[in-house]
Amino acid sequence: MGVVVNFEDEKKGESALARLQKLVKDDMDKVNQTILHKMQSPVALIPQLAGHLIASGGKRLRPMLTIASSRLCGYEGDRHVELSACVEFIHSATLLHDDVVDESDLRRGRDTANAVWGNKASVLVGDFLFSRSFELMVADGSLEVLRILSHASSVIAEGEVLQLTTANDTDTTEDSYMEVIAAKTAALFAAACEIGAVIAERPTAEQEALQSYGKNLGIIFQLVDDVLDYSAEQEKLGKSVGDDFREGKITLPIVLAFRRGTDEERAFWRRTMEELEQQDGDLEKALDLINKHNALNDTLERARHYGAIARDALAIFPDNEHRQALTDIVDFCIARAY
Amino acid sequence: MGVVVNFEDEKKGESALARLQKLVKDDMDKVNQTILHKMQSPVALIPQLAGHLIASGGKRLRPMLTIASSRLCGYEGDRHVELSACVEFIHSATLLHDDVVDESDLRRGRDTANAVWGNKASVLVGDFLFSRSFELMVADGSLEVLRILSHASSVIAEGEVLQLTTANDTDTTEDSYMEVIAAKTAALFAAACEIGAVIAERPTAEQEALQSYGKNLGIIFQLVDDVLDYSAEQEKLGKSVGDDFREGKITLPIVLAFRRGTDEERAFWRRTMEELEQQDGDLEKALDLINKHNALNDTLERARHYGAIARDALAIFPDNEHRQALTDIVDFCIARAY
Repeated sequence: MGVVVNFEDEKKGESALARLQKLVKDDMDKVNQTILHKMQSPVALIPQLAGHLIASGGKRLRPMLTIASSRLCGYEGDRHVELSACVEFIHSATLLHDDVVDESDLRRGRDTANAVWGNKASVLVGDFLFSRSFELMVADGSLEVLRILSHASSVIAEGEVLQLTTANDTDTTEDSYMEVIAAKTAALFAAACEIGAVIAERPTAEQEALQSYGKNLGIIFQLVDDVLDYSAEQEKLGKSVGDDFREGKITLPIVLAFRRGTDEERAFWRRTMEELEQQDGDLEKALDLINKHNALNDTLERARHYGAIARDALAIFPDNEHRQALTDIVDFCIARAY
Repeated sequence: MGVVVNFEDEKKGESALARLQKLVKDDMDKVNQTILHKMQSPVALIPQLAGHLIASGGKRLRPMLTIASSRLCGYEGDRHVELSACVEFIHSATLLHDDVVDESDLRRGRDTANAVWGNKASVLVGDFLFSRSFELMVADGSLEVLRILSHASSVIAEGEVLQLTTANDTDTTEDSYMEVIAAKTAALFAAACEIGAVIAERPTAEQEALQSYGKNLGIIFQLVDDVLDYSAEQEKLGKSVGDDFREGKITLPIVLAFRRGTDEERAFWRRTMEELEQQDGDLEKALDLINKHNALNDTLERARHYGAIARDALAIFPDNEHRQALTDIVDFCIARAY
């Protein structure tokens, strides 16, 4: 692929994740126990299906953000544990529904739940996890946390519907694409971070700083996901290269390659992504065009812009190991591309 | 069909619905405005799809129950309006997901949303309505209402998954079937009624009475739905007779007919409902067997048992027009079968 590996980024990134994981390890052990405990139900299929997804080796980045944000704010209680589990449940519910919507068979290198148990069970267990998440928030008792996470959930659903209505549209502008990912991905990152400040009862300025950090980090995360789909690194994550291409999913690399392309190239994108008329060799041609127009590197360049905003958002906090870990995780999110 | 029409029930039932509707009309006008207002989104497909379902002529029974329950408890504020809209949103979200799960094409005599806009949009707009419902509850600010409705949502999802795992199983006992409908249908009726007492700040005894009334009414409602599926009355509701049969959905009339049947009859049920090997004339044979074993009348007899419990649950309230309307709605729910 055309991405020039930046070893400096890569090194910083990998060690950043390890440092964050080490910093929040004790809390995350409790979060994982809580997740296992709270996804139980007398209806056996629920923990089976939810466990299949939840045990499938995700990084648990979102709950780690809640933990680290609350610690950054000096929080010393234990409410962050259950609330981190809530965040992971909302994320898991959206993944279950996403896989139904995308008709995906593979996630994190394993069969998706819908491939194993069918779409029906995935829809319903997603609903269960989502409801259970709200039950846990209600048990926590903070209306402000409930407000933030229920609003994030609405925004995520709006973003997913927006993506559906603009799918396969090669005319999508960068701005409208950014609107989709701000909603479908960044809103939960933002909420996950913001609630850390809420439970620590910190002033609005810190709550907004963490909200901004999370939002921008979420944008980076999604842009890098988009890049990964066209990158050989993808295969290391147990996904195949070109899934987005085969579905005709318009992401920033395609937006850039389409806009920068010749008339003939645009006709190619319209045929393959809009009309989904794909033939042997099309993925290779798509990769060539993406490469020709430097679309992956420039998507990462855009990601770095949001990274700079995320770092500056944190600058109002005292410089401690939690701020450092959260700042460095920006590098990790970008380094995932390499 | 084998149901002996009870004109007395029918007359009481129809006028009971009309009386309840008249009693809550002013409040319900506000509920309908709130529903239209709160399902708006800049993403146009959301109000389009939600509006298609919500405008499709449901009776709005659940929000009417919230209104009438709060008035029965002497509530004089206006929080019941938005909370009734929440109840209807949760109900609408489950209908959207149900139609995806059941692969239904027709609801209330119109194309289902999934038939018009596809499964993906139905899943996601369902998620939106569900999230929006929680946003509205959070804005209302009662943790007790949030507790009741988030718990009901979990229970509904559990019930739906349970139904999925026991689907097409002719060995289903009456007890396990009752467990499914207590969860998937009655839990929301119960919650819709219970929150009326909560916002009126009435004692636990009244909260529990309304919860019990709603639960038993919900059970009746579902049992009558099950009967309707095998009744000519079904066609008046814009559905075709035998949908449950074609899907192999085990409902109480089938549980009774199967258990009361001969070996040969059981083989018929296994072939048609478990293995879904259906041929011309099978629906007619199924109707004959149901009739032979009096399964529809006896399902209604069971419904009357829950009706008696629902009526007695209300008996602790002063005898006023709201109590009368809620008591009579039990007759309406049974009379729907005729």
